[in-house]
Amino acid sequence: MKNILVIGAGRSASSLIRYLLDKSESENLNITIADLSEELAKKKTGNHKNARAIAFDIFNEKQRREEITRANIVVSMLPAHLHLEVAKDCLTIGRNMVTASYVSPAMQDLDKEVQKKGLIFMNEIGLDPGIDHMSAMKVINEITTNSGKMILFESFCGGLVAPESDNNLWNYKFTWNPRNVVLAGQGGTAKFIQEGTYKYIPYNKLFRRTEFLEVEGFGRFEAYANRDSLKYRSVYGLDDALTVYRGTIRRVGYSRAWDILVQLGMTDDSFIMENSENMSYREFTNSFLPYHPTDTVEIKLRHAQKIDQDDIIWDKLLELDLFNAEKKVGLKDATPAQILEKILSEKWSLKPEDKDMIVMYHKFGYELDGEKKQIDATMVCIGDDQTYTAMAKTVGLPVAIATLKILNGEIKTPGVQIPIHKEVYEPILKELEEYGVIFKEVEIPYLGYNPYNVSS
Amino acid sequence: MKNILVIGAGRSASSLIRYLLDKSESENLNITIADLSEELAKKKTGNHKNARAIAFDIFNEKQRREEITRANIVVSMLPAHLHLEVAKDCLTIGRNMVTASYVSPAMQDLDKEVQKKGLIFMNEIGLDPGIDHMSAMKVINEITTNSGKMILFESFCGGLVAPESDNNLWNYKFTWNPRNVVLAGQGGTAKFIQEGTYKYIPYNKLFRRTEFLEVEGFGRFEAYANRDSLKYRSVYGLDDALTVYRGTIRRVGYSRAWDILVQLGMTDDSFIMENSENMSYREFTNSFLPYHPTDTVEIKLRHAQKIDQDDIIWDKLLELDLFNAEKKVGLKDATPAQILEKILSEKWSLKPEDKDMIVMYHKFGYELDGEKKQIDATMVCIGDDQTYTAMAKTVGLPVAIATLKILNGEIKTPGVQIPIHKEVYEPILKELEEYGVIFKEVEIPYLGYNPYNVSS
Repeated sequence: MKNILVIGAGRSASSLIRYLLDKSESENLNITIADLSEELAKKKTGNHKNARAIAFDIFNEKQRREEITRANIVVSMLPAHLHLEVAKDCLTIGRNMVTASYVSPAMQDLDKEVQKKGLIFMNEIGLDPGIDHMSAMKVINEITTNSGKMILFESFCGGLVAPESDNNLWNYKFTWNPRNVVLAGQGGTAKFIQEGTYKYIPYNKLFRRTEFLEVEGFGRFEAYANRDSLKYRSVYGLDDALTVYRGTIRRVGYSRAWDILVQLGMTDDSFIMENSENMSYREFTNSFLPYHPTDTVEIKLRHAQKIDQDDIIWDKLLELDLFNAEKKVGLKDATPAQILEKILSEKWSLKPEDKDMIVMYHKFGYELDGEKKQIDATMVCIGDDQTYTAMAKTVGLPVAIATLKILNGEIKTPGVQIPIHKEVYEPILKELEEYGVIFKEVEIPYLGYNPYNVSS
Repeated sequence: MKNILVIGAGRSASSLIRYLLDKSESENLNITIADLSEELAKKKTGNHKNARAIAFDIFNEKQRREEITRANIVVSMLPAHLHLEVAKDCLTIGRNMVTASYVSPAMQDLDKEVQKKGLIFMNEIGLDPGIDHMSAMKVINEITTNSGKMILFESFCGGLVAPESDNNLWNYKFTWNPRNVVLAGQGGTAKFIQEGTYKYIPYNKLFRRTEFLEVEGFGRFEAYANRDSLKYRSVYGLDDALTVYRGTIRRVGYSRAWDILVQLGMTDDSFIMENSENMSYREFTNSFLPYHPTDTVEIKLRHAQKIDQDDIIWDKLLELDLFNAEKKVGLKDATPAQILEKILSEKWSLKPEDKDMIVMYHKFGYELDGEKKQIDATMVCIGDDQTYTAMAKTVGLPVAIATLKILNGEIKTPGVQIPIHKEVYEPILKELEEYGVIFKEVEIPYLGYNPYNVSS
């Protein structure tokens, strides 16, 4: 029997745990699910005979070391800042490790010692980061192995509501952390490179410079730029590509309406509003508009943002109940962003029967034998229910598959790493297809941004 | 003979020093001008027989204490963060002190001991803060002493170019620190209270919610909101006033054009631009606009910001040379704000013959015997030349006058303080009139924001 220790049994661990339990018989696995809440761990194991659910405190050094020693491999689904304690023990005790989180500088610092001990610390093997790395590197490596030269790479990902549950005007519901959605784009100016020129988009323009994406069978989407488009440029071998761009996917029309909230100042998280607790939704909205003795809040907002009365944006704002004079915010010392999150949560939370959807879209532009070509790769994954969501599947399954393949010696190159090498992405992408995570690759005429090679 | 020590002989000290030298004969003064640069100190004393210019290092404890001991009163015109060393010595040695800077928490902490020793540490007695406090408190005290009830206070100040030197389309030149002008409004969301309702203006709307001001003989101005409108609400006794608003004055049309630079992202100081040194002005502008294979930078900007070709905004942008493909930025690792400051400095620097102008405008709304009334007070000061600028006069003269009046015992209430008491502001405002710093007060019909008392 081989022992797997999974630390953290939260939302993103559901599909991961189910996969391992399903394989436990054929693969001879004993699985320990460790969580601060024993109840949560038990819920996920469901009395499976090859599973053991335990209450686990990451700061209890003795317990931590005992459990890691007991295991053949450790999966950490903890919040990112807690991985390091686990990693240090894995290094000392000599255990492989898997996480879905970004490689922190402290994690990277362990690389030499991890290699010396012949261990594998696999990171960024969830959805984004994770499936994006693997699906991009597969195509990029195919192109360059075939002597193609990469000239464009664009990559988009979004967590959305599935078409069958899409029943509000924004075509959006919270499928993950609502706070991140409200604060999206506030980390700093978006930077990318487009046809050889560095481009910068400030926050106040971010949601007005979107790009359309068409996914067969699912219609049209839009994407706004991520802050960190260039983070993986060198890692992916794209230093000579003229265009490198990453973005976040929404349904068409979301960004134009969201921009109204941005422009008003409702997404601001930098100050506390006076008397936020007893403020009505209408007063909240009014506090971002000039005073007028007779004009209504509605007309002031329409005027300030130049919204025609028959513009769908207006209906979207009404749907959020922003002008309701009865509903109270009820949050003490809250920032505008916290208040907006509360208002949106009433409208954008998933109902028990709702399903979520993950959409990923890559564009690969390249030159081969003097000719410009393009491959587009798209993946759509729809959740089964509120436990085995598309998010839980796409984050958890690659982690689970990688864990087994490391355990079985199929993945063997040691080091602190991310899944950009063929040894890793090829078998994992292949197995993901069995679970409905399938990329459709199509060759299309090269579009790029400068199809006629005009200089500007 | 009485000894005055003036530490710091920079731009804002010119009028201050001239005032003291002019009074040195009649008032029996010996004046020591101490600056890191002995040359600068000498330039300001000009071999005056009652003056002594010395090289002075604020971090040389021995020299600092010797000079403070020698003096009867100390004026610190140092950068704000350096006052505290001087203040501590003044407290130990037992000397009065005057600064034009905001009272820091550390300075405020000295209050009890300063009072115990019967000393006066007078702060915020320049222009803004300084003349604004004095001129506002004079009218507020008159109103409330007369049983009036304050319902509205608005206060505006701006450093501008004098009409005779106003020869660019922006009607603006740098008369003080250019960096502060570029970064204006970025400290945080502007907050104020208007007819009893707290209002918030985010940075991206700040320059689009201006208010017009008419100054007799000088025409129309506009003002955008300061971040800290409520800072002095309690200090001025305005806790019950329905409207408290402070703003910065520009000529009409400045803000609408400046907003274009804000919206593009050119005022951003949070990131370093790639290859800033070798970038042309045109490339700088283009980096904030989407790529297009054939459209020019000009048409892309006009389209993105919806600027008609016959809109004066367009001429203002052309005047800045933002589309020049020959001129290089020439700044290594620069932020957009640093690059913009450089571009503007070429166009907005004062010529040797140019004069500056300070404009201050207060509105006082109050209720007396059931009737609503309003007093407007305005002050315009024009510089003599590039040494005795309006800024140097309005910052330095109140400091100088206060210094003499403390020395002569005319101002005698001890403590760490700002000039909000009659004992201080009355004689100083009166003497300032001799130097052309004159407030015109006029009673006008109460305007406020809700003259007909309509609720909303």
